[in-house]
Amino acid sequence: MAAPAKAENLSLVVHGPGDIRLENYPIPEPGPNEVLLRMHSVGICGSDVHYWQHGRIGDFVVKKPMVLGHEASGTVVKVGSSVKHLKAGDRVAIEPGAPREVDDFFKIGRYNLSPTIFFCATPPDDGNLCRFYKHNANFCYKLPDNVTFEEGALIEPLSVGIHACRRGGVSLGNKVLVCGAGPVGLVTLIVAKAMGAATVVVTDLSASRLSKAKEVGADLVLQVSQESAQEIASKVEGLLGGKPEVTIECTGAESAIQAGIYATRSGGTLVLVGMGSEMARVPLIHAAIREVDIKGVFRYCNTWPMAISMLASKSVNVKPLVTHRFPLEKALEAFETSRKGVGIKVMLKCDPNDQNP
Amino acid sequence: MAAPAKAENLSLVVHGPGDIRLENYPIPEPGPNEVLLRMHSVGICGSDVHYWQHGRIGDFVVKKPMVLGHEASGTVVKVGSSVKHLKAGDRVAIEPGAPREVDDFFKIGRYNLSPTIFFCATPPDDGNLCRFYKHNANFCYKLPDNVTFEEGALIEPLSVGIHACRRGGVSLGNKVLVCGAGPVGLVTLIVAKAMGAATVVVTDLSASRLSKAKEVGADLVLQVSQESAQEIASKVEGLLGGKPEVTIECTGAESAIQAGIYATRSGGTLVLVGMGSEMARVPLIHAAIREVDIKGVFRYCNTWPMAISMLASKSVNVKPLVTHRFPLEKALEAFETSRKGVGIKVMLKCDPNDQNP
Amino acid sequence: MAAPAKAENLSLVVHGPGDIRLENYPIPEPGPNEVLLRMHSVGICGSDVHYWQHGRIGDFVVKKPMVLGHEASGTVVKVGSSVKHLKAGDRVAIEPGAPREVDDFFKIGRYNLSPTIFFCATPPDDGNLCRFYKHNANFCYKLPDNVTFEEGALIEPLSVGIHACRRGGVSLGNKVLVCGAGPVGLVTLIVAKAMGAATVVVTDLSASRLSKAKEVGADLVLQVSQESAQEIASKVEGLLGGKPEVTIECTGAESAIQAGIYATRSGGTLVLVGMGSEMARVPLIHAAIREVDIKGVFRYCNTWPMAISMLASKSVNVKPLVTHRFPLEKALEAFETSRKGVGIKVMLKCDPNDQNP
Amino acid sequence: MAAPAKAENLSLVVHGPGDIRLENYPIPEPGPNEVLLRMHSVGICGSDVHYWQHGRIGDFVVKKPMVLGHEASGTVVKVGSSVKHLKAGDRVAIEPGAPREVDDFFKIGRYNLSPTIFFCATPPDDGNLCRFYKHNANFCYKLPDNVTFEEGALIEPLSVGIHACRRGGVSLGNKVLVCGAGPVGLVTLIVAKAMGAATVVVTDLSASRLSKAKEVGADLVLQVSQESAQEIASKVEGLLGGKPEVTIECTGAESAIQAGIYATRSGGTLVLVGMGSEMARVPLIHAAIREVDIKGVFRYCNTWPMAISMLASKSVNVKPLVTHRFPLEKALEAFETSRKGVGIKVMLKCDPNDQNP
Repeated sequence: MAAPAKAENLSLVVHGPGDIRLENYPIPEPGPNEVLLRMHSVGICGSDVHYWQHGRIGDFVVKKPMVLGHEASGTVVKVGSSVKHLKAGDRVAIEPGAPREVDDFFKIGRYNLSPTIFFCATPPDDGNLCRFYKHNANFCYKLPDNVTFEEGALIEPLSVGIHACRRGGVSLGNKVLVCGAGPVGLVTLIVAKAMGAATVVVTDLSASRLSKAKEVGADLVLQVSQESAQEIASKVEGLLGGKPEVTIECTGAESAIQAGIYATRSGGTLVLVGMGSEMARVPLIHAAIREVDIKGVFRYCNTWPMAISMLASKSVNVKPLVTHRFPLEKALEAFETSRKGVGIKVMLKCDPNDQNP
Repeated sequence: MAAPAKAENLSLVVHGPGDIRLENYPIPEPGPNEVLLRMHSVGICGSDVHYWQHGRIGDFVVKKPMVLGHEASGTVVKVGSSVKHLKAGDRVAIEPGAPREVDDFFKIGRYNLSPTIFFCATPPDDGNLCRFYKHNANFCYKLPDNVTFEEGALIEPLSVGIHACRRGGVSLGNKVLVCGAGPVGLVTLIVAKAMGAATVVVTDLSASRLSKAKEVGADLVLQVSQESAQEIASKVEGLLGGKPEVTIECTGAESAIQAGIYATRSGGTLVLVGMGSEMARVPLIHAAIREVDIKGVFRYCNTWPMAISMLASKSVNVKPLVTHRFPLEKALEAFETSRKGVGIKVMLKCDPNDQNP
Repeated sequence: MAAPAKAENLSLVVHGPGDIRLENYPIPEPGPNEVLLRMHSVGICGSDVHYWQHGRIGDFVVKKPMVLGHEASGTVVKVGSSVKHLKAGDRVAIEPGAPREVDDFFKIGRYNLSPTIFFCATPPDDGNLCRFYKHNANFCYKLPDNVTFEEGALIEPLSVGIHACRRGGVSLGNKVLVCGAGPVGLVTLIVAKAMGAATVVVTDLSASRLSKAKEVGADLVLQVSQESAQEIASKVEGLLGGKPEVTIECTGAESAIQAGIYATRSGGTLVLVGMGSEMARVPLIHAAIREVDIKGVFRYCNTWPMAISMLASKSVNVKPLVTHRFPLEKALEAFETSRKGVGIKVMLKCDPNDQNP
Repeated sequence: MAAPAKAENLSLVVHGPGDIRLENYPIPEPGPNEVLLRMHSVGICGSDVHYWQHGRIGDFVVKKPMVLGHEASGTVVKVGSSVKHLKAGDRVAIEPGAPREVDDFFKIGRYNLSPTIFFCATPPDDGNLCRFYKHNANFCYKLPDNVTFEEGALIEPLSVGIHACRRGGVSLGNKVLVCGAGPVGLVTLIVAKAMGAATVVVTDLSASRLSKAKEVGADLVLQVSQESAQEIASKVEGLLGGKPEVTIECTGAESAIQAGIYATRSGGTLVLVGMGSEMARVPLIHAAIREVDIKGVFRYCNTWPMAISMLASKSVNVKPLVTHRFPLEKALEAFETSRKGVGIKVMLKCDPNDQNP
């Protein structure tokens, strides 16, 4: 299966704050260790919307036009000369972070921490919200026949949940608190249950988001509003019949981090997934003297193979997360939908000949 | 609720090889840290049958009459003077191993390794297949209302599975091989799935046992007979589409241990649960140079609380394991049933006024 | 060896802020699991001085007279009826925290987190700065002949260092930053080197303390004053030729915690040993996105046996830490010396017949 | 610094059993990710001698002429086009194993298990006992000025000890048993002490080897001969005053593996470093029921950076291991010396202009 004769590669490009455009890019040529992919399904992430709205996330600034998108799957159309494990026609999920150097972080298996890593749609690296995209073949993973392209694309957010739960040490019989019922909170919930958590309580400001949390497996939900951090911690303990061994904070709000510290059982772990402000005022000593470990996550590593195994064996179900679909041509409308916070995951369909899940 | 006036305590006692008797024992008086329990449900374990048939297991020899039974639950009828966390009327599951000394093993949380531990129905310590039994209150765990007595009793075999899977490091998305589809293999299978294993294959000689394995959740089964250890390993790899990260050997057969070494993925773990002969001839170097860790288990520790959480949240279902029930008065018939290997778990009902599950 | 006929038990008692007194207490009678000890050497800890000066530490308030002291060693003079592993005449080091209940924390080997633990000289529990003291025998550890009483007493502060380094995961070849060159910083330094750290840099405001740090093994020292947290982090990186894998913060100062976050290598660990204010303003996100884990310590657990092994084999040398000695009768003078921050460790000699180290 | 004009590259080549020759090879040209090195010091390993004597090790068969040598250091003379972290003139230590593929083992940080790894002097991959050698630049590590070339070459055997001790979990205060006082046993001993082991006992058949063990840091030695495995275990326990938490078996002898199982403390670890026969008869159940984990090692991974840190900070001293030196021209004499088992480490000096350590 060869790349199409005519070099048409519709791509969604952010040029600066408030400025995204559908543009035609050349079809790239894969290098020796790369594959060229015909993109199929690409989910919109909060970070994509953020780059569109603000032109930056922290120190990452859009200084030149950048293709968005990093939750993606597609089909191999061409393989580089050194690629052995993939061939044209293979359906693959794409891990968007691919280390550029074999540094110490890579060698110890924590390549997500490598400072020179390539990462889709993080300036200045282009993403894959386009028709054709080339990627490091070692970070493309073949999908079994019984895993759909959309499930393949959802491995990216699922990986955030896997990495968070793994860092938190979620284990059999645990009580778990998940703060926030947005997409990240929901995948974290799904993974925590899959890892054997006995009871997961999810908190959020929004009743409708909590209702979705119930739908995808939350044992308990708690709608919060003006309570103090200690009050939330106390309600969580009441609901669970004890403090959670693991708390996974997916909002980034200072008050939620505080609540997470108060809520977590002595000897447990608070995982910080949500991104907050540069400085946070927190009762650190309250965590310290109860040996509640505070661990952050930076993206993920080593999650695609296990996620594919879970999806292939039907051990987790992420399909309910997709609430909207748009063809790539309607990307602006899709981003607008995502920005409004309607639904959960908006999926863009990049292959004009196959818009199936 | 006081202990009954008349000291009637029907107990199943092993006197030596082939000699078990129902006898009337005095109702014991709990010490300061103990509780007296009215026994409700007690499962028969292979070790109970083995003491009956052979009067010994390895170095543990029945030298004086010993009450059998250690998979048990009951109701508190009296509490010792220092007991705070339990009261008469509480329904509890009993952890049969209770350390006698606060030694170094206990202090580091591995009290199962304490050489002076008390353990029900391991000579010379009496078990709890009787009407009334006293036990260290710290090793009695209150059952929630939605967990039955039989589920409480099944926490003991379930704990073997929990400890084995935990020692094996079963984690999300793993391929797992379980050798043997007897009661221990089945609980191991149930736990491995609950911990997030994507695919579990169970091997056994018996088609009917494998059929039960399918029923309680095996993704794949493999009936073995005369194959070599390498052949079995090869078939397992074929079935799973790759070598398992964790193998849990529950038969004790030398050939199964060998197969486990060949089968396990480099960097994985082989857990030895089954008890075999004193000396085993194994391809140790084949494990060593592939860094397949070989880990045994001795009973369990720290499993009751998490097992209760799992049962209360309906995250695992052990009810299908109970295939036979007998009142305590028919204990000999029950043991005969268990000895024949009919069904899976034979449950003895010790409370004449409540024979419910 | 019997307890002395005349019940004379000189004890150092704190009655409230600014009020410590030498008083005569009765000689206690050991319970079944206890031993009565003739105290030999007791170090003064910063917390002892704090209770004297302020009558409280956080929520722990001196509401009734309390004997101070918890860094201690002595000789068994009487054993309780159930004690097997000790006998009169045994020289022992005392672990001041002894769990009162066999709760879940104790069972998993983290008994320091047990909310009901007994702890010497933490209100309302009496300490052992006295002539005769009884203690849970399971938390008294026999000293080999080649370990002195003072080394035995120093196991307590050494344990803080062991627990901190263990929680931090200090390992072979590590670069380590220790913030603070007080007694806790120094023992942490000693332990980090013993665990295989290649290079340890110690920071402090005081040149004389840093000079002591050099003396007990610091590879590098950094005197800090008005630098920003980032500047300190940068200097540390320059000195070490790279960021430290582990930072152990022993001051409790907000600025030092901030510096610790900036300084630690991605994927590393910041251990909080120093006690600061209830709320701290810290760049939590800077730790989170670099996966720098933040772990506190609450005292220690399971350290005495390993500390004794280290002292017996001369693998660590804590003797230089003792800079002052006073007989118990001069306890007030000793406390005044300690309060002034002169020297490092002030040792009280409680046995009038043996004032040797 | 350019490569010499005349292509002279004296190399020690094994052609088959009993057949090693000094031959002139062309000077290789480094690829984009490679560096060309002027070799300085290369130690002779038992495996080099084994390939010479037998033409094979297990399944690895010398089918075509192969350059020997893999304990090596040298100087960069040319860098490939993509190499950034090294430049001509840099003194480097060479990690002989360099993964060819970014497979799952590499991604999780256990690249030593990668089945397609390149490894110096393992058929069919050439080693570096020669004048000029090219290697993957990512697996060449710059040596600080205060680390000699010979120390750099000794990082390879040191890495075996590091990996073994790390897999065994050697930690502060441990008692450790090392079986065998050959080069591997000695580096293991050195590393165990550096990681904080309190007491290490080394066993061997040879008094002279044990004497060397004492010289490099063994606390205790035990000369063994005809004792049974249990007797050896018992003697070890007597010497150490308790069973070792970790045993590291460096002989490969079945009897030593058996002794290791009996000797190790419950809950401890037996590490298999020595290579024995395909099948071993061992008391596996004795390890299993005491939860003594059995772990093998395959070479090492992630050891060079920490080893360099340790050498640079003088935390370990490996210099006494070098007992013989020969210029490359006398390689056959050097191999004969090594074969005879005289001394410990024979070092070949490959640079005719610098034969210093």
